[in-house]
Amino acid sequence: MEQVHVVTREREELLDITGAVQKLVRENGWTTGALLLFCPHTTGAITINEGADPDVVRDITVNMRKLVPYRGDYHHAEGNSDAHIKSSMFGCDQMVIVEAGTLQLGTWQKIYFCEFDGPRSRKLWVQWLGTR
Amino acid sequence: MEQVHVVTREREELLDITGAVQKLVRENGWTTGALLLFCPHTTGAITINEGADPDVVRDITVNMRKLVPYRGDYHHAEGNSDAHIKSSMFGCDQMVIVEAGTLQLGTWQKIYFCEFDGPRSRKLWVQWLGTR
Amino acid sequence: MEQVHVVTREREELLDITGAVQKLVRENGWTTGALLLFCPHTTGAITINEGADPDVVRDITVNMRKLVPYRGDYHHAEGNSDAHIKSSMFGCDQMVIVEAGTLQLGTWQKIYFCEFDGPRSRKLWVQWLGTR
Repeated sequence: MEQVHVVTREREELLDITGAVQKLVRENGWTTGALLLFCPHTTGAITINEGADPDVVRDITVNMRKLVPYRGDYHHAEGNSDAHIKSSMFGCDQMVIVEAGTLQLGTWQKIYFCEFDGPRSRKLWVQWLGTR
Repeated sequence: MEQVHVVTREREELLDITGAVQKLVRENGWTTGALLLFCPHTTGAITINEGADPDVVRDITVNMRKLVPYRGDYHHAEGNSDAHIKSSMFGCDQMVIVEAGTLQLGTWQKIYFCEFDGPRSRKLWVQWLGTR
Repeated sequence: MEQVHVVTREREELLDITGAVQKLVRENGWTTGALLLFCPHTTGAITINEGADPDVVRDITVNMRKLVPYRGDYHHAEGNSDAHIKSSMFGCDQMVIVEAGTLQLGTWQKIYFCEFDGPRSRKLWVQWLGTR
């Protein structure tokens, strides 16, 4: 498998990794099939959402914090239970179709690494599942 | 990849697409492996849930609206930030196992396209990941 | 496809199935590629989260119950609409990378079957998507 490295700067942040993933596809000569993106961190996730207006990821981050607040009925002593919960809500895996060596995304879609307990240095794992 | 076309009629709606997906499997002669269903829209999603009692999808739709309301602390000017948030919560990808040319679903499971900002004309992308 | 059997003991519970899944990988001689784990139950799900401190799964369970309460504006007569909603939020599918016959998980990650309407006897389906 391959890796993508990500450095986050905020506690909660959605970071556009589309370019880095497309670069991997090109460098490895992956042509037709699908990619599995996997986040090995339990306080992060991967999602796909709109990339045209930065207010969309702002709205996602702010409102997920409202839904799952930083402080609450948490027993886990590290103070990041909110991040673990959001990780399971968004999910640590993401599949993306590849055709002719190009990530197949909708017009407005970008792939985001979701940081819920940063800032940190993170990595994503990428497994190619080609059909040819 | 193949496509499934969907026309939604409500702002928020879960539409059963199981038959359309099974039809694709049969028409393409896909036998054993898995399908990747991918929603290229950032205000939609794909999920699998109960299909026997229509009240289940009603309860999902109504209570997701309560969790992530239409109006709120949103900066995105298009007025559909709730739909973007729900899209990331449910996810735009869905894997389904296929055996002997048949979708493998639990007794009560149906595949749903989730419309969160309709009514619209939508499409789903389908990538075959066969093992044989 | 293969199966993993799970017996849950609480109404809501996250059960560590990492060992059972790794056993399947070894017994089947799966080497390099990815696994699709699929929950055929509409009141269960699969997630990956921290396994070191049991308080993390406790915090997830307790706070998901707060977000999506047992009683609410539900029409479905079986009294488990909360479980159906959580099933779609966490998702019934989970992909995991396999290398050299070993599940590739982050340092703190474990694979969990999520029971939202137990106690019950459950099964998970496992489809191998090998690349070699």
